[in-house]
Amino acid sequence: MAGNKSTAEQYADYKIKMQKIADVKNAIAVLGWDQETYLPEKGAEFRGQQITTLSGIAHELFTSPDLEQIIRSLHQNSDLNPVELKNVELSLEDVEKNKKYPAELVAALSNITNECYHAWIKARKANDYQIYAPALAKMVDLKKQEAELLGYTGHPYNALLNEYEKGMTTTELDAIFKEVKTSLVPLLEEIELKPEINKDFLHLHYGKDAQWNYGITLLKQMGYDMKAGRQDISEHPFTTSFNPLDVRVTTRIDENDFGNMTWSCIHEGGHALYEQGLPTDEYGLPCGEATSLGIHESQSRLWENNVGRSLNFWQSRYPQLQELFPGNLRTVSLHDFYKAINKVQSSLIRTEADELTYHFHIMIRYEIEKGLLDGSIDVKDLNHVWNEYYQQYLHIKVPNDAQGILQDIHWSHGSFGYFPTYSLGSFYAAQFFEAAQKQVPGLDESISTGDYQPLLTWLHTNIHPFGRFYTSNELCKRVTGKPLEFSAFMNYAKKKYSGIYSL
Amino acid sequence: MAGNKSTAEQYADYKIKMQKIADVKNAIAVLGWDQETYLPEKGAEFRGQQITTLSGIAHELFTSPDLEQIIRSLHQNSDLNPVELKNVELSLEDVEKNKKYPAELVAALSNITNECYHAWIKARKANDYQIYAPALAKMVDLKKQEAELLGYTGHPYNALLNEYEKGMTTTELDAIFKEVKTSLVPLLEEIELKPEINKDFLHLHYGKDAQWNYGITLLKQMGYDMKAGRQDISEHPFTTSFNPLDVRVTTRIDENDFGNMTWSCIHEGGHALYEQGLPTDEYGLPCGEATSLGIHESQSRLWENNVGRSLNFWQSRYPQLQELFPGNLRTVSLHDFYKAINKVQSSLIRTEADELTYHFHIMIRYEIEKGLLDGSIDVKDLNHVWNEYYQQYLHIKVPNDAQGILQDIHWSHGSFGYFPTYSLGSFYAAQFFEAAQKQVPGLDESISTGDYQPLLTWLHTNIHPFGRFYTSNELCKRVTGKPLEFSAFMNYAKKKYSGIYSL
Repeated sequence: MAGNKSTAEQYADYKIKMQKIADVKNAIAVLGWDQETYLPEKGAEFRGQQITTLSGIAHELFTSPDLEQIIRSLHQNSDLNPVELKNVELSLEDVEKNKKYPAELVAALSNITNECYHAWIKARKANDYQIYAPALAKMVDLKKQEAELLGYTGHPYNALLNEYEKGMTTTELDAIFKEVKTSLVPLLEEIELKPEINKDFLHLHYGKDAQWNYGITLLKQMGYDMKAGRQDISEHPFTTSFNPLDVRVTTRIDENDFGNMTWSCIHEGGHALYEQGLPTDEYGLPCGEATSLGIHESQSRLWENNVGRSLNFWQSRYPQLQELFPGNLRTVSLHDFYKAINKVQSSLIRTEADELTYHFHIMIRYEIEKGLLDGSIDVKDLNHVWNEYYQQYLHIKVPNDAQGILQDIHWSHGSFGYFPTYSLGSFYAAQFFEAAQKQVPGLDESISTGDYQPLLTWLHTNIHPFGRFYTSNELCKRVTGKPLEFSAFMNYAKKKYSGIYSL
Repeated sequence: MAGNKSTAEQYADYKIKMQKIADVKNAIAVLGWDQETYLPEKGAEFRGQQITTLSGIAHELFTSPDLEQIIRSLHQNSDLNPVELKNVELSLEDVEKNKKYPAELVAALSNITNECYHAWIKARKANDYQIYAPALAKMVDLKKQEAELLGYTGHPYNALLNEYEKGMTTTELDAIFKEVKTSLVPLLEEIELKPEINKDFLHLHYGKDAQWNYGITLLKQMGYDMKAGRQDISEHPFTTSFNPLDVRVTTRIDENDFGNMTWSCIHEGGHALYEQGLPTDEYGLPCGEATSLGIHESQSRLWENNVGRSLNFWQSRYPQLQELFPGNLRTVSLHDFYKAINKVQSSLIRTEADELTYHFHIMIRYEIEKGLLDGSIDVKDLNHVWNEYYQQYLHIKVPNDAQGILQDIHWSHGSFGYFPTYSLGSFYAAQFFEAAQKQVPGLDESISTGDYQPLLTWLHTNIHPFGRFYTSNELCKRVTGKPLEFSAFMNYAKKKYSGIYSL
């Protein structure tokens, strides 16, 4: 059939089929958003069933022989423009990857994910890793099978990494984390010798409504289009997108922690600006999807840290903030505020870590995941391994499993290979921001006057519009002239923290 | 294939397939709910597309030969219990009805609906019916074709009525509306001679938050389960259900119209209690669906009018209400409040009409729809016909098309046969409420002390749990011992309004 159609007709067919799948997936995303924001509690079970049904439908549509045939036929076609060709190539890759999964593995993964998640919940409650270990062991076995099945060069972990950060390898990550150790450890040791920064004033009472309004103001001023998105409250902040014209964020408000809402809001805002910047024309196609998790995270972290924790950013904003919360901040100088929001201190919980020690949390998880995959670490001993790593790298004693190995949900979902993308996000962010500073004259000055448009324009031009057209690595080279290097982050960190801690 | 399976296996297959379709339809309902409550404005176009895609998928699933084969095979099976058999019979009916629609008619209806809706919007803006007339004429032609295709006995309008109120006919409706004229007109004439009731105090300023909280209190006290539902704000109040454990209502708040929020809240609450009372076990199957539009409306109107506009209801509630709005209500007696909320006055707009004159608004629409279907009324002259009817039955001069024939959206959607269900709802409500008063000892007393549980229990036992197992008519006979009769409504109206107007 396909043979009788012109390339344009075939491509139109392909696009219609892909957009239909996207419509179903985005309906699932709406159901998921509703689940985290407004779903009444008794509706949870039926909602789970509705999501499972739609996921099944999306899977059926994507694995239909018809679609594969059109993709294969287009793939052999020379009349496509580069974006069209890239879409077809990536779709073929996705189809072929999908076909590697036998139905039994898919079912087993689904069952074990369910078992593992509930075991994790139970173990956290009981504060006992051993309740989780047997299910996690099954999960690790399945992930090993998955790696074999997907195929890899070098370390089996590469197969899983590739799912989140295409092309990333343990070789590259080992090199980066080696640098983390050799450069970041000395910096942290220097900081440890300095007097502790006071940030108690961030934990005074900050009213809910005032915080909410401030968060909305921040989002608007960052350039988040409120006519193509909205903010709501959820237990864990997240960003979700149903298309570039409907990208939603959530936040949470702790009346005794001003930072919690503020930087989660800027962080999710960064993710959302990326999604709002993806091309609507490519809706449903690979070039309309985010490049990778690492690149996505670079956008949230660039805004959260490189911008949102900079002195420049608060230069113009701080006086307004003092006016909003005079009781808490009137006597706190801009400089003391700036120091407080950047305080470095080893801590137990990844999500509460500062910008520097954060990467040791990730490195530990990375080493463990790698070890689990190549068999050098045993699931049974994981809590001990964890605690030793925390002692070694963060000089901190883990008091119990709940605050240690049980703190993250990721492994219970089978998400091995995900954690490194958090650190990669920070490192890409530093390299991108450095490039933006070079390429946009007066960028720092505009930020210090509260004008973020020049930065957003740069991001909308250089990072956002390509989707999966470039890999992370290609995008990084294109934008910064070189592959990802840890040095940009280290330069940024040294400069920033030398100032803060008078090193 | 089906032949080799046991009845239980076949029925299980049927149920799984039907529930899958329900999951898709309920996902569409979530998308629709979001569209009316939280959707950012730029997201509207993609949302429309997502809904269209899911509707197409639901249609494909329901018209799959597999499903039809299972249904037909089960239909010839004698091992089913009565509920199972009814599900299969109704599914077969639905399948066969679906098959009557040729693809061309479906496409034409979809196109004309779109054209008609936009023409209606444009005509309303320009206050000129003739802008709407050509599109509406095409719609009427299609509805005539549809009626022929569906088949009918007697008047072609019966085919369309049947879509909303199975088994209802013009013969029955003509008889009812004849009674409306012969009984209601004299009552209204008596009322017209009486001094006008003052309801100005309902239009003082009632604060938004206080109204919102009052609405929530009302819903909870009616017995609406907030853990299986929620209320939000939308432009037009509505109820939507994703399953009996997630039934949502919306309201709107006009700070200068206390009645607007209050009775729309009770009205939607009545719809919601019905949906929450449908059997969860029958999710996705006909016996898990509402009986008919008329029965659905009977539930909203029973709560809104028979309960919510009764003296009993306000006996215990009114002192609290006075405390909530002392500036507005302190000097207004319960009796004056009761009279105000039941004031009878001819008006132009259906949705603003009182409990009595309302039915003339419906009768006019019914006569017009019937006339359009049998060709005795021409679309071209419709605004003149409308205005004459309003003069004749409501003694009111329609000043322009916007406040006349263009006030309702229904015809632009192709919903011919829908309007009568509003009146039927009121008439069923009166007959049901009369039965409940007879069957539940002390019902009025419990209502007057603010305890609605005996009423809700009666509804949950006698009306809600059957879904489509009974037709409206069967249900009515089962519950009240007789078919629908106008007399229950008339007795209720005479008694109530004789008191209010001292007739």
